[in-house]
Amino acid sequence: MAEKVIIDTDPGIDDAMAILLALRSSELDVIGLTSVFGNATTEVTTLNALRLVELEGHYGIPVARGCERPLVLPLGELGTYVHGEDGLGNTFPPLPKGKPLPLHAAQFILEALRRFPGEVTLLALGPLTNLALAVSLDPEAAALARRVVIMGGAAETRGNISPVAEANIYNDPHAAAIVFKASWPVTMVGLDVTTRVIMTPEYWERLYQAGNRATDFLRAITPFYQQFHDQFYGMGGATHTHDPTAVAYLLVPEWFEAPELPVYVETQGRCMGQTVVDWHGQWEGLPRVKVCLGVNAEAVLDLIYERLAKPMESDEENETAVD
Amino acid sequence: MAEKVIIDTDPGIDDAMAILLALRSSELDVIGLTSVFGNATTEVTTLNALRLVELEGHYGIPVARGCERPLVLPLGELGTYVHGEDGLGNTFPPLPKGKPLPLHAAQFILEALRRFPGEVTLLALGPLTNLALAVSLDPEAAALARRVVIMGGAAETRGNISPVAEANIYNDPHAAAIVFKASWPVTMVGLDVTTRVIMTPEYWERLYQAGNRATDFLRAITPFYQQFHDQFYGMGGATHTHDPTAVAYLLVPEWFEAPELPVYVETQGRCMGQTVVDWHGQWEGLPRVKVCLGVNAEAVLDLIYERLAKPMESDEENETAVD
Repeated sequence: MAEKVIIDTDPGIDDAMAILLALRSSELDVIGLTSVFGNATTEVTTLNALRLVELEGHYGIPVARGCERPLVLPLGELGTYVHGEDGLGNTFPPLPKGKPLPLHAAQFILEALRRFPGEVTLLALGPLTNLALAVSLDPEAAALARRVVIMGGAAETRGNISPVAEANIYNDPHAAAIVFKASWPVTMVGLDVTTRVIMTPEYWERLYQAGNRATDFLRAITPFYQQFHDQFYGMGGATHTHDPTAVAYLLVPEWFEAPELPVYVETQGRCMGQTVVDWHGQWEGLPRVKVCLGVNAEAVLDLIYERLAKPMESDEENETAVD
Repeated sequence: MAEKVIIDTDPGIDDAMAILLALRSSELDVIGLTSVFGNATTEVTTLNALRLVELEGHYGIPVARGCERPLVLPLGELGTYVHGEDGLGNTFPPLPKGKPLPLHAAQFILEALRRFPGEVTLLALGPLTNLALAVSLDPEAAALARRVVIMGGAAETRGNISPVAEANIYNDPHAAAIVFKASWPVTMVGLDVTTRVIMTPEYWERLYQAGNRATDFLRAITPFYQQFHDQFYGMGGATHTHDPTAVAYLLVPEWFEAPELPVYVETQGRCMGQTVVDWHGQWEGLPRVKVCLGVNAEAVLDLIYERLAKPMESDEENETAVD
C-alpha cells in the first residue's frame, strides 16, 4: 500500500520539483499539502501549492494554509532572492482554480494523524512552524505519525543561510527544536546530502527535453534558481538538490547513510539555527534523530530524472480539459 | 636570524612535546614561556614550564606565571583527564630548580613586544587569557607583535571539548574573541589540521628508541595521553598532534593551506567556543584570521621526529652537571 504523506512546504522552486516528484511516485499517496512561509510569504506559497497539485490534474489533493511567521521570532528575510518574488522564479503563472481548505495546516495535520494512526508520514520542506504547532496543540498526536522526514539542517557541512545554519531550521529554530524533541521518529535530510546531489546544466537540459507538463514547468522556473547558485556558490548553472532529495529518501532510504544521533538545535545568538550533532554524547537530554550523512547521489539523480521525465497519463486529459 | 618566540602554554603532554620541539629548532629563539590554566592549574603548568626549559639545560629561558582562570567565566573543568593531575601523565617528576619571574605573564609579553618591536611571535598553546590581558592592558602593543600563532579552534571539523568547540578556545572564549580581533596578525592552527597529523603507536615507538632526554621524558608522559585518545576516539594507541603542529607551522608555513577568512568566536550558549568561519561573508565586522585548513601531515611528522630524535649537544653536559 502506498505510504500516506502530507507535504508541508513553502514552494519554492525545489519544493515544486519535490512535490511533482512525489505526485509522480506511486509508492506515495500524497493526502494533502500544507503551506508555510519561508521561500516566500504564506500567501504566495499557498497559491503555489495549489498550482502544483493542479499542474498535472491532482485536483483531489487538498491544500491547507499554515503559519505566516515563526513561533517566537519576528518574520525574517524571505527566500525570494533564491526563488523569486512569486516563489517560482518570477514566472508569475496564472492563479490556481482551487482554494485552500477552511482549516489551519496544523489542524489538518492533526486530523490526518488521528484518522490514520501510524500511517501518515510528514514530509517537511520548509520551516517547521506548522509541525511544531500541531504537536504543541496535541502532544500525543506525535505518537500517531509514521515518521517525520525533514529537509533541513547541516551536521558536518557549512550552512546556507548563515555560516552554520540551514535556512529551514534558521527560519524557525524554536519550531525545529520542538519538532526534533517530539515523540515521532525524525529524519534530517540536510545539507550534508542535499548539497552532494548536484544537478548539472546538462542534467537540467536533459530533463527539459522530456517536454511534459512537469518538466516544462521546471524549465520555466529553474533558471532563477540556477542563477542564485551561480552567484552565491559559483556553480556555473548547476544546482544543489534540496527538497527532491528528501522525497528520494522517502522512496529509497537504502541510498542514504543515516545514523541515529543526538541533535541540538541552537535557538539564539549568531549560531541560531545550527543543528549540532553531539557525536560523542557530551551533552545530556538531547533528542535522537536519524541524520543523513551520506547519499548515493547518482542513484538519486537517476530516480528523479526517470520519474519527472516520464509522460503522465493525465497529460492528454489535461490538455483537453484545460487548454 | 632566529625568530623570537614567546610560548604561552599550559603543559600538558602535547605542550611538552611542542616546547621541546621549539627548543630544539635553531630557527626559533624561545625568549620566554608564559603559563596559563587549561590542561591543569596554573600552579601545575608553571612548574611544568620550568621543568621543560630545564630538561635539556635551557636555564636561561625565563618563565612568567599567568592567569589562573578565564577573563569572564568561572574556571571550568581542567584537562587533567587528558593530561593527568600533574599535566604530565601522572608521572610527578621532581620539582624544577628555577622559579618563575616576579612578573605576570601578560606583563612579560608586553615588555618583550616593546623591547623587540616587530620581532616577537606569540605562540599560544593554551587558553588565550594571558594574550587577551596583555592586549587589553595596552591595545597598541598588538601592533608590535610579529605574529600570533594559536593552537586552537575548529573551522570545518568537529570540536573536541564540545561537539563544536576546541578546548583552548572553549576554556576562555572571551579571551579568544579579544585576541582574534586585536590588530596583530593571527593564525589559527586548529583541529582541522592537528587531528590530521596522527602519531601512530609505531611512530611513538620509533621516537622512544632515540633514547635522549627529550624522548625519554615523552616516553614517560605520553601513555596517559594515548590512553585518553583510545578511550575517547578509539585510536588504538595513536594520538592527534595538536601543539607540535603549531610549532611546525612556525617552522614551515608552506606545508599548510591557510587562507585568510573572517572568524567569529561564540562566547555563549551551547555553541560557546565555536570558531565559526564566515565562508561567504554573510556577517559584518568580523576579524580576518589565517585559518589552517590543510596540512602536509607526513612532512610535519617527519620534521617532529627528526628534531626530537637527534641527540642534543647538551645531553652529556647535563648528565655531568645533574646526575
